[in-house]
Amino acid sequence: MLDSVPKDKTQKVIPNGCTDKEWKVTASEAAKNCKNYIRDIVDNLVLEPNPEKSLIALSIGDPTVYGNLEPPNEVVQAVLEAVTDGKYNGYGPTVGTDESRKAVAKYLSFDGVEYDFKDVILCSGCSSSLDLCITALADSKRGHNIVIPKPGFTIYKTLAESFGVEVRNYNLLPEYDWMIDLAHLEAQIDNNTAAIVVNNPSNPCGSVFTEEHLKDILDIAYKYKVPIIADEIYERLVFSETRFVSIAAVNSRVPVLVCGGLAKRFLVPGWRLGWILFNDPIGAFDSEVRKGLTCLSQKTIGSNSLVQGALPKILELTPQSFYDDLNNTLYQHAKLAYDILAKIDGLTPYMPAGTMYMMIKIEIQCFPQFRTGLELMQRLMEEESVFCLPGECFGISGFMRIVLTVPFDMLKEACERMSAFCIRHYQHYTPYDLESQA
Amino acid sequence: MLDSVPKDKTQKVIPNGCTDKEWKVTASEAAKNCKNYIRDIVDNLVLEPNPEKSLIALSIGDPTVYGNLEPPNEVVQAVLEAVTDGKYNGYGPTVGTDESRKAVAKYLSFDGVEYDFKDVILCSGCSSSLDLCITALADSKRGHNIVIPKPGFTIYKTLAESFGVEVRNYNLLPEYDWMIDLAHLEAQIDNNTAAIVVNNPSNPCGSVFTEEHLKDILDIAYKYKVPIIADEIYERLVFSETRFVSIAAVNSRVPVLVCGGLAKRFLVPGWRLGWILFNDPIGAFDSEVRKGLTCLSQKTIGSNSLVQGALPKILELTPQSFYDDLNNTLYQHAKLAYDILAKIDGLTPYMPAGTMYMMIKIEIQCFPQFRTGLELMQRLMEEESVFCLPGECFGISGFMRIVLTVPFDMLKEACERMSAFCIRHYQHYTPYDLESQA
Ligand SMILES: Cc1ncc(COP(=O)(O)O)c(C=O)c1O
Ligand SMILES: Cc1ncc(COP(=O)(O)O)c(C=O)c1O
Repeated sequence: MLDSVPKDKTQKVIPNGCTDKEWKVTASEAAKNCKNYIRDIVDNLVLEPNPEKSLIALSIGDPTVYGNLEPPNEVVQAVLEAVTDGKYNGYGPTVGTDESRKAVAKYLSFDGVEYDFKDVILCSGCSSSLDLCITALADSKRGHNIVIPKPGFTIYKTLAESFGVEVRNYNLLPEYDWMIDLAHLEAQIDNNTAAIVVNNPSNPCGSVFTEEHLKDILDIAYKYKVPIIADEIYERLVFSETRFVSIAAVNSRVPVLVCGGLAKRFLVPGWRLGWILFNDPIGAFDSEVRKGLTCLSQKTIGSNSLVQGALPKILELTPQSFYDDLNNTLYQHAKLAYDILAKIDGLTPYMPAGTMYMMIKIEIQCFPQFRTGLELMQRLMEEESVFCLPGECFGISGFMRIVLTVPFDMLKEACERMSAFCIRHYQHYTPYDLESQA
Repeated sequence: MLDSVPKDKTQKVIPNGCTDKEWKVTASEAAKNCKNYIRDIVDNLVLEPNPEKSLIALSIGDPTVYGNLEPPNEVVQAVLEAVTDGKYNGYGPTVGTDESRKAVAKYLSFDGVEYDFKDVILCSGCSSSLDLCITALADSKRGHNIVIPKPGFTIYKTLAESFGVEVRNYNLLPEYDWMIDLAHLEAQIDNNTAAIVVNNPSNPCGSVFTEEHLKDILDIAYKYKVPIIADEIYERLVFSETRFVSIAAVNSRVPVLVCGGLAKRFLVPGWRLGWILFNDPIGAFDSEVRKGLTCLSQKTIGSNSLVQGALPKILELTPQSFYDDLNNTLYQHAKLAYDILAKIDGLTPYMPAGTMYMMIKIEIQCFPQFRTGLELMQRLMEEESVFCLPGECFGISGFMRIVLTVPFDMLKEACERMSAFCIRHYQHYTPYDLESQA
């Protein structure tokens, strides 16, 4: 297609107002401003694995890649039934069918939160939930901005910038379990702030906010009268003693859109079932935003009907043991990686409280051979065939993120290779002034 | 949720730059401008079926509602296998997996058209394909407009207006098989026209363009250097002697984005599998638009992975007899409806050449009791419990659209009720001046 030449260049062009312009098919600002930040960074890295060693990718946030983690049988069964049934091939309402909305409302009604099915909009994955929420709340024409976590998942930035909406980062504090730097958050907000994006549990940090912290965040939202978009795609994906609390459970007065979906907890990211829930105790979304989101849902017309058909069974029949086993596996993996990595001079792993990720700080001064964390990671790939995502993919330097869903032995092997690599390149760091005094 | 009162109204609000504003959570322009035209019209109709008569809805463009039309066994089987396989639960590339893109490229490579898999982007239904295409090409900031058919499917308008892109209608000519009024089309185009939307076969008209007509359209696009968005969701859904020709098959020099999907031909609209194909002989999309569309595909991250996994089998194994049977059934239904309706004084049905729709003109002067076609249709519902979509839902007055996918006997019954209704209300029309001369 691309290389073929126009078959007919002879046809006369009839002169008129616009004839003379050549084909200059430009992309819209929306398309040009829509970036894939992870790809942009990764594509610019020189990534050559060591041919002697099998590649271990700790980079891919997809729990299904290695086949070691599988969705519950009940879930597979429910979809098989929906396919066989033949009743779930047609269009549903653009916001989802009543039955599947009811199932989601029920599934997320806990800890005192009560959702009605009318509070639920189904989307094509949580990405599309976030797309709709940001589109509905933020307006480039009014100079709107949204504030998002740093480090954080880049899709918020990708989506907002595509609409011409400014993005401001608020810091997460690694030394305080990646809690939000509340003063910094506050400093980002102004009259044009259309939404605060809160991601809990966090990708890439693996942190899980406490009730108290969530209340503090809500207080700031309340103070400035800014609605919250709560990305809770990792809800209840937490380890051992940690308890997941939805922001909705401690909210009494802030309009919140809670986004989530099946992707992570049910290990089926490809199924593209996401949701938006209205947690709006004061009814601030009633005048415009509910209607707006409902209308915007026409753009994709809900989620796949087979998965919707199966949804009530998926959410009801998945046994608690499945959730427990998954959380336990992820915890074992996290502990394994943490125990190995914590012993490596020059790396500081942060033990996650949930999700499927772990952040690792690179004490770059301990590796004077490398100028940046990015360079270190490229060499780690070159020498050990271990690939981690650089913190830069989440807006932060000097860190890397590893994915904990790879099989246990592979994770162990990867961490051991990282260890060997670091030992090889580590040079005891003596601050310059100390050295010169010596 | 909605009715509950804030539990805590006592908390002091700390004064600052924006404290005093009340919660005024407005929706963005994008959300406010995103209209559902069909709903807006239908919701404003008084629609009370006659309790004595069963409701027959000829309004719903979903071939699966009555259960009489089912997807091919091969297709159901392919999805069952994809579910059982367990290999199709993860994320694919945002544009779709190579295998499924290859399958689509092959499926649509006929009549001399040859697509490469890189020419294919998978989306969440054809609606989302159209969303991406319009977003990628049209820019409100540059005052862009797109030109769309009238009568036509309203999603083009919904999408464009949501981005602040102006919409201009070009007329289809009922008396010429709903061909495009080319002079009118030309008159709509100016320097700010970002795309011409061509829908062939047409919803709501059921018309299918000839090769010659497609060439004429391409000539206009070429003359003004405006790319085409070709909505071919009803491709090959044509009756008896009619042949479907894709615009790509006669195009040698215009950049065209061909949109389509599984929804109609495979009777699975709920599965949300749509596609965009680059038919771009001169490479005009290479500099920006291909990249832009690829980036925009991050918004939903492709289509459901199970359907993608099944796609190669869906497109390869569906037997020709399935397509033929479906087309034949639709043709029988069209003929049935046409034969009954053509005999009714005051109605003029237009025999479709494809799709699942038929347009009917209402000679409103023959029904002086009713001021408008809308009023007539409300009464048809009240007296006969037959519901058709008013032409207004497609931007045209004095017409109604019926859906041909309802079971044969139901369609017959509906047409007979329409006949009885029209006979009851028909009054022989004598133009006023004739009457006064008599
Ligand atoms: C924080 C966060 N939000 C949203 C998503 C997107 O989820 P989905 O696959 O349902 O679009 C991801 C995926 O990795 C994520 O990490
Ligand atoms: C002309 C036309 N284009 C696109 C669509 C949307 O198709 P999908 O269900 O794949 O989004 C329809 C649906 O009725 C249609 O009639």
